[in-house]
Amino acid sequence: MLRVTVSGDAEHRADLLAAEEPLEIRVDGSPLTVTMRTPGDDIDLAAGFLFTEGLLPRLDEVDEIRMCDQNVAAVTLKPGRTLASGPDPEAAARNFLTTSACGVCGKDSVEAIRTRSAFDVAADPVRVTPAVLAGLPDRLRDAQRVFSRTGGLHAAGLFTPDGTLLVLREDVGRHNAVDKVAGWALRADLLPLAGHVLLVSGRASFELAQKAVMIGVPVLAAVSAPSSLAASLAEETGLTLVGFLRGTTMNVYAGAQRVTAADAPLGYPAG
Amino acid sequence: MLRVTVSGDAEHRADLLAAEEPLEIRVDGSPLTVTMRTPGDDIDLAAGFLFTEGLLPRLDEVDEIRMCDQNVAAVTLKPGRTLASGPDPEAAARNFLTTSACGVCGKDSVEAIRTRSAFDVAADPVRVTPAVLAGLPDRLRDAQRVFSRTGGLHAAGLFTPDGTLLVLREDVGRHNAVDKVAGWALRADLLPLAGHVLLVSGRASFELAQKAVMIGVPVLAAVSAPSSLAASLAEETGLTLVGFLRGTTMNVYAGAQRVTAADAPLGYPAG
Repeated sequence: MLRVTVSGDAEHRADLLAAEEPLEIRVDGSPLTVTMRTPGDDIDLAAGFLFTEGLLPRLDEVDEIRMCDQNVAAVTLKPGRTLASGPDPEAAARNFLTTSACGVCGKDSVEAIRTRSAFDVAADPVRVTPAVLAGLPDRLRDAQRVFSRTGGLHAAGLFTPDGTLLVLREDVGRHNAVDKVAGWALRADLLPLAGHVLLVSGRASFELAQKAVMIGVPVLAAVSAPSSLAASLAEETGLTLVGFLRGTTMNVYAGAQRVTAADAPLGYPAG
Repeated sequence: MLRVTVSGDAEHRADLLAAEEPLEIRVDGSPLTVTMRTPGDDIDLAAGFLFTEGLLPRLDEVDEIRMCDQNVAAVTLKPGRTLASGPDPEAAARNFLTTSACGVCGKDSVEAIRTRSAFDVAADPVRVTPAVLAGLPDRLRDAQRVFSRTGGLHAAGLFTPDGTLLVLREDVGRHNAVDKVAGWALRADLLPLAGHVLLVSGRASFELAQKAVMIGVPVLAAVSAPSSLAASLAEETGLTLVGFLRGTTMNVYAGAQRVTAADAPLGYPAG
């Protein structure tokens, strides 16, 4: 890599780039999808992807997930099991086409995703203080080993309501970082993640809000902006959605009843 | 939206969120894919997606692209034409599964994309000065109407080597912003984009480098970090890849011969 300045100086420096390689996920020998990801925690990524995309309702339907190549995760289902989209490969492909790009499509999208999740985040009584939320991005960054050097990795962190970091996963793709957290929790039998907070390093798209609902986490916080559809999904599913979590302030787009001072009544203006 | 501070203040404010809605692309009546995008320039997005993913080699194979719903772009091919992946729907689905997630997969990926592109960016003799490159992010930001308000939109801008902005497109998805630029150029019969510079507001993934090569643009610049595979693809295809384009400095990961002072010999250290 050549470091260049506008004054015309140029200096060779070592590359410190975030690793990006394709991971092919195979199910019972058939290729299902390829995702560009940062190698590491690939078994979690494969399990988390299948679960958050609604293709695999329970881990006990899986006989084994193993890496049969550094870039191929082979999922073997138990005898007689198929992916949740059914045995029709066209339907499976269709389902994937839909979910990979956007989760769901069309006007019934929010309703469709709400019924597809096994968990009801709306009922989760957890409360988190603004002070705890404000401290999470620093905790995430402190725990990231790679981001500060390469500038290229997104992170997803799972926290308790008092701000303790349970697990951190990094990836060039934000959705992969979340799927790695989801797969870790799934394989540790921690789902639903009731009473927890999921923090993502960048923006909060519809896809990430959907994944949060799928794993039953009631609070999704993002350092940057959410999208309009992420806010709609959060509103309709009862997910608390926090954006622009920076410094001492944050924006709460849905589920604000969970963001409250520790010993105080809610005290928020109505509306 | 509730603006909350760590001291417990809470204040209602208007939402200013980047719009995110699903766009379904149909080809000859069959759904091909759904992408989450920011509405606007949807015809360009559909055309650009088909072209940069290698599904549509030439626009003259298309009879019509029209919106048949605000979230559905219907592509009608000319009689007897099919998508480049062939008439086999399974092959088409397979191709899509591959390209949507990562462009290509496996060890032959770089070679595959190089042969798939109709254009040879390696032969492009264009030169750009560091001073011009350093000025591009400000020009892009100045031209962005939405980003500063929502913080949620990525941008892709196409520039001449003297830093003139030809077109700017914004989207919640960086790949969509690039596809909107690609579709605009395709429909304006400007391909290949020889002698031009494409700037993206965030990071440069493999997918974006692939799209740059597909439309024949010889210089891809990113405000943030490229991935390792983007750098590999750039190196092997002859694409100039600039990252961390901020302030007065930039990192050149491949094709540094194109980054040179206006009237000076190259003068860079060897290697």
